[in-house]
Amino acid sequence: MNIVIIGGVASGAKAAAKVKRLLPHASVKIFTDDTHVSYSSCGLPYYIQGNFNDYTSLLVRSPEEFKASGIDVFLQSKVEKIFPEQKNVLVRNFETVELVPYDKLIIATGASPVRPKIKGIDDFENIFTVRKIEDGINIREKMLKSKNAVIIGGGYIGIEMLEAFSKNNVYTHLFERSSQIMPTLDFEMSEVAKKRLNSIENKNFELHTDSMATEFIGKDGVLTGVITSDGKQYECDLAIVCAGVKPNTELAKEAGIEIGETGAIKVNKLMRTSVEDIFACGDCAEKTHIVSGKKVWIPLGSTANKEGRCAAMNVAGVYCEFEGILGSMVTRCLNTTIAMTGLTEKEAFEIGFKPVSVVVSKYDKVAYMPDTGEITLKVVADKITGLLLGAQAVGSIGADKRVNTVTSGLIGHLTVEEFSNNDLTYSPAYSPTIDPLLNAMQILCNETARSC
Amino acid sequence: MNIVIIGGVASGAKAAAKVKRLLPHASVKIFTDDTHVSYSSCGLPYYIQGNFNDYTSLLVRSPEEFKASGIDVFLQSKVEKIFPEQKNVLVRNFETVELVPYDKLIIATGASPVRPKIKGIDDFENIFTVRKIEDGINIREKMLKSKNAVIIGGGYIGIEMLEAFSKNNVYTHLFERSSQIMPTLDFEMSEVAKKRLNSIENKNFELHTDSMATEFIGKDGVLTGVITSDGKQYECDLAIVCAGVKPNTELAKEAGIEIGETGAIKVNKLMRTSVEDIFACGDCAEKTHIVSGKKVWIPLGSTANKEGRCAAMNVAGVYCEFEGILGSMVTRCLNTTIAMTGLTEKEAFEIGFKPVSVVVSKYDKVAYMPDTGEITLKVVADKITGLLLGAQAVGSIGADKRVNTVTSGLIGHLTVEEFSNNDLTYSPAYSPTIDPLLNAMQILCNETARSC
Repeated sequence: MNIVIIGGVASGAKAAAKVKRLLPHASVKIFTDDTHVSYSSCGLPYYIQGNFNDYTSLLVRSPEEFKASGIDVFLQSKVEKIFPEQKNVLVRNFETVELVPYDKLIIATGASPVRPKIKGIDDFENIFTVRKIEDGINIREKMLKSKNAVIIGGGYIGIEMLEAFSKNNVYTHLFERSSQIMPTLDFEMSEVAKKRLNSIENKNFELHTDSMATEFIGKDGVLTGVITSDGKQYECDLAIVCAGVKPNTELAKEAGIEIGETGAIKVNKLMRTSVEDIFACGDCAEKTHIVSGKKVWIPLGSTANKEGRCAAMNVAGVYCEFEGILGSMVTRCLNTTIAMTGLTEKEAFEIGFKPVSVVVSKYDKVAYMPDTGEITLKVVADKITGLLLGAQAVGSIGADKRVNTVTSGLIGHLTVEEFSNNDLTYSPAYSPTIDPLLNAMQILCNETARSC
Repeated sequence: MNIVIIGGVASGAKAAAKVKRLLPHASVKIFTDDTHVSYSSCGLPYYIQGNFNDYTSLLVRSPEEFKASGIDVFLQSKVEKIFPEQKNVLVRNFETVELVPYDKLIIATGASPVRPKIKGIDDFENIFTVRKIEDGINIREKMLKSKNAVIIGGGYIGIEMLEAFSKNNVYTHLFERSSQIMPTLDFEMSEVAKKRLNSIENKNFELHTDSMATEFIGKDGVLTGVITSDGKQYECDLAIVCAGVKPNTELAKEAGIEIGETGAIKVNKLMRTSVEDIFACGDCAEKTHIVSGKKVWIPLGSTANKEGRCAAMNVAGVYCEFEGILGSMVTRCLNTTIAMTGLTEKEAFEIGFKPVSVVVSKYDKVAYMPDTGEITLKVVADKITGLLLGAQAVGSIGADKRVNTVTSGLIGHLTVEEFSNNDLTYSPAYSPTIDPLLNAMQILCNETARSC
């Protein structure tokens, strides 16, 4: 059996390893136009920051290690076309092209950074996106010589890069065109994060919301600044563009594979596409939201990994259903942890729930303990049914703990009332007697139509 | 309406505050034989350790604060008898006795340390239990002058005291008569904790399991050592006895209130006892285990607080059901976090489940991140139904996070298969791509009879 995998970062690499374990005698080939395979893209901001100094730490498995377990990796080998009728793919490696046959094909082409149409974006050196190993190497090298940087986009990559630059004493302006950093959060929670960041003493960065870069300026190909929508000009010698990503679906589209309503490749629970013997997983594939039941496209490394595993199992004939996602995420910027799961109040409303919500700010431990921090939690439920819909947390380390506790409640479709009976661990060194999460749920319970 | 509450540490204090908010015109009186009311007993080891220096930080609400909100607190006032027929209680304050009438009575008499029959236990100064504010003050004062201490009992209070003594450079021998420290854990998990503690460089303590103190020795009332079951003798000038607690039920028993099979006061979901208009909550009351449905007695501060709230609501005529507990707990000893929820494998087996389990040891973050620690997780499920039964974690900070994530799954009666679909938050700074918990669940899934 010939198994061909297109793309090898997270889901592709995982799928290859898993399918080879299940079918030791199958031929498994990974084709990728990248120069590296099987790496932790999410770790790039921490490599850039200097949390570790050897970029090869980001590599999970080298092509040699794949080879040793019987998997062939073809780097810088771009699949240019899929021929579903003939069951083969056209691969280009520089000037060489080749037709490679498959019995089962896994598309794991991932996503690419959106490159917004900002004047001058292609005219200067030192304007980067953060996606590949080379991006990390180049940005780190440049950052160490940089004085002033700009970051375009205030999502999680933007604020992780902000931490990296801040820790390396590069003065940074971050521009986010929407009215909030971390636009996936509800506005009020984003404001909590912004306030925490802005309260840092002697901070070496500025957060600009409702602010768009309209032009990069420089001289002789060298970046010197950026002009924003309000006509102001900011000096910089380094720019990071993290204005979102889009799924890499061209190859699938051309092959006649159905694209979902979200713009990503449509798959069923078995990670099968609309075309026989072709699977898709990871950032290029559409997902189902467990709380809303709706199709969504939320590309995250943890999901990619699980989908890769599930696709591999079905390729190997071992039944596996991937139930979907909750959109759970966590990120950190300096003193602030930001985490969420499930639906925001805004999303819940748009989908047609009647959301009610509660926001509480509490200490993360009993107040008399040392190193006590503050956590602000927002919990959301449906007013009519009491169904728990989601949670967001901003604050000290431990904010993510509360959000992870909610994930299992969402998987179990618990009501707020049921969740309020939760028996969380307690010790003064770990939480207050009544954890902020339970406190929020008890209050939320009173907002729903169910008795609590 | 006259509401009388017996006991005022955790559940009694909570009940008083809650019932007064719900019934502002009721008379609410707390009687306690203690010298303090409304305090964090769980915080005593941290006060002793010196994490904070003012013991009044442990006091949640002073009698004056209660007074200001219309609640009368009577300290050093022991309720000697309940007369359910006449609906009053006999209170003794030193030489004064008084009959106090009630319409509703809440028994929150808590638990008392077991004082094992060790020869000499009452003959010397500086042999303490850890329960009340005075205990904390006295132990701390003595510890600061101490060179060698012994701790009798290796449960969570024992190991928290070990941390306190170790951090204060008091060389300590801990004796636990069972074959494991933290006897509520499965043996193998207890061994992981023991190994971590024993691996501390230049540690200033020794852990002795299968070891019992048989005699305290000393001179002129001054403690100088302890003799153990194997005939050895250990020098010490300070001893902590934390060999368990027992529910304070005498008062209830004498009043003809039904005692449950566990030896604690029997209550229904509304925290009502078998006698009209008498409620019980906190450490003196029996609990229902949510996973097994069995009656248990696991006295913990977080439960006491919730039960107090629920009892108060029902006293005030606001319907509240307390569903029960999971036995969730967390504690810390030096570099080691220990947490659990639900049933251990041993308990599950004894109850009649067919438990299967998986133990995994993994990094708590992606390996390339700084300050990466290790977490060992044990997850337990029923082989036949796949029902998730419990989890235990030992390791770095973050072990408790994994256990809290399981609590919601237990509340929702999830199967391992359902839990394996959980979408936990991921970022390299917070967890590996596949969290140790999901990893453990995926392996456990294969051990059950359900397809995964």
